Amino acid sequence: MTFSIAVHGGAGLIRRHSLGAEREAACRQVLRGAIDAGTEVLARGGDALEAAIAAVVLLEDSPLFNAGRGGVFAADGTVQLDAAVMHGKDRSAGGVCAVRGIRNPILGAEVVRSQSPAVLLAGVEAERFLTAHGIRTEPPDYFHVQERWDHFLKARAAGRAVLDHDLDDDEEPKGTVGCVARDVHGHVAAATSTGGLANKLSGRVGDSPVPGAGTFAWDATCAVSATGVGEAVLRSSAAARVSALMELAGLDLDQATRRVVFDELPALGGVGGLIAVDGGGRIVAPFDSAGMYRAIRDTDGNVEIAIW
Amino acid sequence: MTFSIAVHGGAGLIRRHSLGAEREAACRQVLRGAIDAGTEVLARGGDALEAAIAAVVLLEDSPLFNAGRGGVFAADGTVQLDAAVMHGKDRSAGGVCAVRGIRNPILGAEVVRSQSPAVLLAGVEAERFLTAHGIRTEPPDYFHVQERWDHFLKARAAGRAVLDHDLDDDEEPKGTVGCVARDVHGHVAAATSTGGLANKLSGRVGDSPVPGAGTFAWDATCAVSATGVGEAVLRSSAAARVSALMELAGLDLDQATRRVVFDELPALGGVGGLIAVDGGGRIVAPFDSAGMYRAIRDTDGNVEIAIW
Repeated sequence: MTFSIAVHGGAGLIRRHSLGAEREAACRQVLRGAIDAGTEVLARGGDALEAAIAAVVLLEDSPLFNAGRGGVFAADGTVQLDAAVMHGKDRSAGGVCAVRGIRNPILGAEVVRSQSPAVLLAGVEAERFLTAHGIRTEPPDYFHVQERWDHFLKARAAGRAVLDHDLDDDEEPKGTVGCVARDVHGHVAAATSTGGLANKLSGRVGDSPVPGAGTFAWDATCAVSATGVGEAVLRSSAAARVSALMELAGLDLDQATRRVVFDELPALGGVGGLIAVDGGGRIVAPFDSAGMYRAIRDTDGNVEIAIW
Repeated sequence: MTFSIAVHGGAGLIRRHSLGAEREAACRQVLRGAIDAGTEVLARGGDALEAAIAAVVLLEDSPLFNAGRGGVFAADGTVQLDAAVMHGKDRSAGGVCAVRGIRNPILGAEVVRSQSPAVLLAGVEAERFLTAHGIRTEPPDYFHVQERWDHFLKARAAGRAVLDHDLDDDEEPKGTVGCVARDVHGHVAAATSTGGLANKLSGRVGDSPVPGAGTFAWDATCAVSATGVGEAVLRSSAAARVSALMELAGLDLDQATRRVVFDELPALGGVGGLIAVDGGGRIVAPFDSAGMYRAIRDTDGNVEIAIW
């Protein structure tokens, strides 16, 4: 059996002229590094979730994407991060939300999944649990990416909470990050990590850390990692919805994801995209926005890195 | 068009001999008060969600149930409350999680739904948002119900997080509370409120405040409020799952809820129950436990109050 893997770095208003060639190349390089990190795990017969986490860690460590180090600033001027993981073999899941100072929230989500009776932990208590389990922290200056701070000040001046790429078209685009993978054992898994909306209400929980909303995995159907305006994703349990459309309505992965992204989410005011892999290793990456940072390695080993 | 409404006060290991006649009568009286409060709203042509909230406020104000005043203690010795509301007419939703000192978390969830761009707010930041919007707070002693504290000490000594009614059979049973209603305009709505698990990890977010998990409403299918071990409910997006089984698999309300409660949740290690109403006003209340506190007023005006 072969493996496949896809990563995304967020969907939104990404314009070629404002992104710039240098920035575009840097983003593509990080996406390449992430897909390679996951591939390395899968190629040696490793687990789908281990691969997804390895990929997301690299995206979190980059200041270019809205997760981990590059997370946007909430309304109170702090970086508050959300992340979730889900394993398709048993639908075990873990998530953390509104945590500060955690270098790799995706590793925190995995600790919740594997070492906690809970599925979802929030806020300072989550931080305490993670640090007690050896998860690495960083001081505030680690998360102080200057362009993010400038962007936050602009969003605050505009008086609204925005996805970082929707502020205006000379903003540099970034977004939620995520990975879905299918390993050689036939298991699928999903991992999603984000800083949420710039200038968001402090304490706001989006879809990313919630199993079924922004992150879902079940070997019988698919694994999904979503990006976009999380409120519509939460209200429609969008990631689990893709699975339900496959299981209950007989749609294939392409049909199910297109229905969610192009019909159901817009009906609730949501715009975004997702990456998904089915039990056979097929990957799709639909998005209802100008662009979505993504890298896909299919079951034949072909790698595609794309933004538009 | 007629209306219907149901409330629950939690499902679990409820035994007649340990509950006692006096306690049972007191619980029934509170359930009666809640169903009457919701009925009053619906009878004058009021909105389904307004009715559901009116019912849940009464349950939160009682020390007998695990929500609001009667919420159980988390591992750090504080009462941390979760709640959510969802309206079937537009699937708008609001939730609060891990909030302390909020007298009626269900009113907080409604403020999030109606006055916030977010769907879900967590922790101290949620508390700040709610108090800024006039939501009433209470000092810690309001929530210090002695039997809850004694129970917490016992749970802590036993070293485990438990649903308050699962500790042992001479514990007094209580649980999550919720309401579903269908109004004369044909709209459905759901409201759920809980203190979660006794001795739970501080910061643990259960299914109750998460739209799609413990709380769901959509006029096209049904409204659902779930109770039980929230982790399985979260992982399976159980409330939205009932809706999906009706919409996509053609099951009726009874079939869909029975499949979730008796097949799908147990497969993920979950035990519990739920109340649900469909667009026609039909109500069901399946539970996979010894008992579930509940009161149902059907479209003919018949009221049933039951525990076993």
